[in-house]
Amino acid sequence: MNRIISLILFSSICSLNSMAQDDSTFIKTIYNIALSEGKAHEDLRSLCKDIGSRLTGSAEAMMAIEWGKLKMENYGFDTVYLQEIMVPHWERGTKEVGWIKHNTGQLIKTNMLALGGSIGTMGVLSGDLIEFKSIEELKSSSRDLVQGKIVFLNQPMDEQQINTFKAYGGCYPIRGNGAVEGARLGAKAVIIRSLGLPIDAHPHTGSMHYEENVEKIPAAAISTKDAEFLSNLLEKGPCEFVMEMDCRSYPDVASYNVIGELTGMETPDQIITFGGHLDSWDTGEGAHDDGAGIIHSLEAMRILKLLEYEPKNTLRLVFFMNEENGNNGGKNYAKWVSDNGEKQIAALESDRGGFAPRGFHVDGNDSQVQFLQQFEKYFTPYDLHIFEKGYGGVDINPLKNYYPEIPLFGFVPDSQRYFDFHHAPSDVFENVNKRELELGCASIASFLYLLDKSL
Amino acid sequence: MNRIISLILFSSICSLNSMAQDDSTFIKTIYNIALSEGKAHEDLRSLCKDIGSRLTGSAEAMMAIEWGKLKMENYGFDTVYLQEIMVPHWERGTKEVGWIKHNTGQLIKTNMLALGGSIGTMGVLSGDLIEFKSIEELKSSSRDLVQGKIVFLNQPMDEQQINTFKAYGGCYPIRGNGAVEGARLGAKAVIIRSLGLPIDAHPHTGSMHYEENVEKIPAAAISTKDAEFLSNLLEKGPCEFVMEMDCRSYPDVASYNVIGELTGMETPDQIITFGGHLDSWDTGEGAHDDGAGIIHSLEAMRILKLLEYEPKNTLRLVFFMNEENGNNGGKNYAKWVSDNGEKQIAALESDRGGFAPRGFHVDGNDSQVQFLQQFEKYFTPYDLHIFEKGYGGVDINPLKNYYPEIPLFGFVPDSQRYFDFHHAPSDVFENVNKRELELGCASIASFLYLLDKSL
Repeated sequence: MNRIISLILFSSICSLNSMAQDDSTFIKTIYNIALSEGKAHEDLRSLCKDIGSRLTGSAEAMMAIEWGKLKMENYGFDTVYLQEIMVPHWERGTKEVGWIKHNTGQLIKTNMLALGGSIGTMGVLSGDLIEFKSIEELKSSSRDLVQGKIVFLNQPMDEQQINTFKAYGGCYPIRGNGAVEGARLGAKAVIIRSLGLPIDAHPHTGSMHYEENVEKIPAAAISTKDAEFLSNLLEKGPCEFVMEMDCRSYPDVASYNVIGELTGMETPDQIITFGGHLDSWDTGEGAHDDGAGIIHSLEAMRILKLLEYEPKNTLRLVFFMNEENGNNGGKNYAKWVSDNGEKQIAALESDRGGFAPRGFHVDGNDSQVQFLQQFEKYFTPYDLHIFEKGYGGVDINPLKNYYPEIPLFGFVPDSQRYFDFHHAPSDVFENVNKRELELGCASIASFLYLLDKSL
Repeated sequence: MNRIISLILFSSICSLNSMAQDDSTFIKTIYNIALSEGKAHEDLRSLCKDIGSRLTGSAEAMMAIEWGKLKMENYGFDTVYLQEIMVPHWERGTKEVGWIKHNTGQLIKTNMLALGGSIGTMGVLSGDLIEFKSIEELKSSSRDLVQGKIVFLNQPMDEQQINTFKAYGGCYPIRGNGAVEGARLGAKAVIIRSLGLPIDAHPHTGSMHYEENVEKIPAAAISTKDAEFLSNLLEKGPCEFVMEMDCRSYPDVASYNVIGELTGMETPDQIITFGGHLDSWDTGEGAHDDGAGIIHSLEAMRILKLLEYEPKNTLRLVFFMNEENGNNGGKNYAKWVSDNGEKQIAALESDRGGFAPRGFHVDGNDSQVQFLQQFEKYFTPYDLHIFEKGYGGVDINPLKNYYPEIPLFGFVPDSQRYFDFHHAPSDVFENVNKRELELGCASIASFLYLLDKSL
């Protein structure tokens, strides 16, 4: 080999090695800060306990916006501002009860939660139950069988799926479409088996939808334990269900995405959007969903700022509003940045809980998957090992409509415990482990650093 | 290439592929059974709630032996028997209190646990406190400073270690050797900061030792929160510590390792030993330590039996007794099998909690590491990714003395939460997640299957 070329190659390799070493050292510093001088656990406590659950339209959601803006200002981010959006306002009300009425006359009270967006029952509603094991089974039934009854959709999540999000996806239609499909066949109401993996007494709420020209009927979830119990009863003979809910929707209200930036030093017009969603369901405290994602991204930017990292591109942290029941935060953000002619270059979301980090997904093409995979080596010391094609996140997903070419990254924590807590009263601060949360923050800060340097 | 060689190669590759497929299918079946028809969670509940904590010498330890033997018999293992050993008998007693006495006279009660094996205080014991940050700092101090005082060893676990077992290892000397090193310099007693990562109110007990010709002094652990509080107080001025403990040791008693086998069909004289330890500390319920390891290995063999797997070699499940304070189960087992002229070919232990599986370690040479790494591909669908050199386990470790050539494997679950619970009152059934436990059982059953086929 020509000696000069050898030298150049050698010096490039040295330089690459020393760059890689610098990167590894910087990343180690990030992890050390997150684990030893982190604010994550206290910030999550504050969000969960000083604010609480944060459904759009609630006082808590408004307070969370103020909380988020103040946090970003206090951590000294360059630019902090709000983006106004309109959001749904639905309230659970004060009445929410459901009984199984056995044909012997025995009443068994259930643990029940209205699904988000459901109409109320306008007083006490009762009817004979008819059970289906999936939305397809309901759809292929007939008006003769369903008319005037309360549909019970009892599809368990598939526990054999190792990735619990796949099991969740398989059951989502009973919650999302149950009321519409029930109403098409004349049902009075629909109750579903909660979308949760353990057999326990917590019901799990979540979004449902109605369709124009299909009658709106009430929809609620009972706990998995109650669903098993009810299904066993129904095998032996008919049962009624008696329920009352006074949940209702109010006119849409103004709300806000909360935005903070570290301005890029080289190409400030190139923007990397990242964050989680500030709203949560009204049960529990939205600790894993998505308090963890909010804190992951807040702490990540705090650490980068603390280390006086000067990003090449602009890092824009967004606390999205309204992921849970409309995604108006994500949709409006995407349209707004596009209308403003912004140059978005990548996006990252954390919305899968505050568990031990496993890696990152990318929603993108093959070369974007390869781009992601070059980061894996930096994360091996921290036990991250999943670097593959997958999903970004609900909030950042609408960016695809305007920037189809950019990669959307999703943070992947361990998924085994997520559906113990998701949308349930048990999604509280105490069920988030401090170290697992901190490791997530460090993983995201490190990822942002590598991403920013590489784009 | 010669056409015949091509054909032979092609057929070998096909055969290898189909073997690999068969193995993958079998492993998927193992995981499905563990997740859908598993007995693990109920068996752990029974061990934790019907028995409870299981320190050697206690009635519970004896009941756990009966429990284990009955489980193995009921699951239809070929041979079930007990191996008698002698074990220590230490009891916590009924008095266990400690106060910080500030120089203003104010008394602050601490959360304190005697360390296992400690002598009692023979009534109330009090003395001025002297703080050290490590065992080295104590050792390099002088009799003038320490004489007549109560030594306070306040070394925090290093939270920046990603593998929490390394952080634990770094602090172990303050617990294991604190009393000896304190006594050498004339201390009256020693209290240590609990070996736990979170700052909380739970003290963590664990083994300590005395040396011949060094005075025995009482040793106890206070919670990390109390340790932080006390250290802050000591910065401002001197404090006393007042304590009473009536823990004591009794003569050794007979106990048992519980053993069950599936007899090998081809080479029954070749034995693969695997298991966990049945004893636990007397606080909490020994749910992660090592109820999880007991259940992992019990359920693994139950599933292999259920699937009518006919092992090539003999699979021998051992519930070891006395890992926590003497390891007499492990030591005697190793000697006994060697004395019997048995051909041990490999061993596997699970003693790092019931958390989401990450992989397996091997304590062995380079070719044994390579041997382990060939299994990784089978576990990728289940998110296991650590297949490297490491530690086997305390119970199987003495096999090295008699069979230095065999590989000792250690199951590696996620380590982030282990030292929240380890040896603390919080190590209870409720803090073990059902799915995480089940995935551990399936991982171990699959590993045993691959190991047996390959040896």
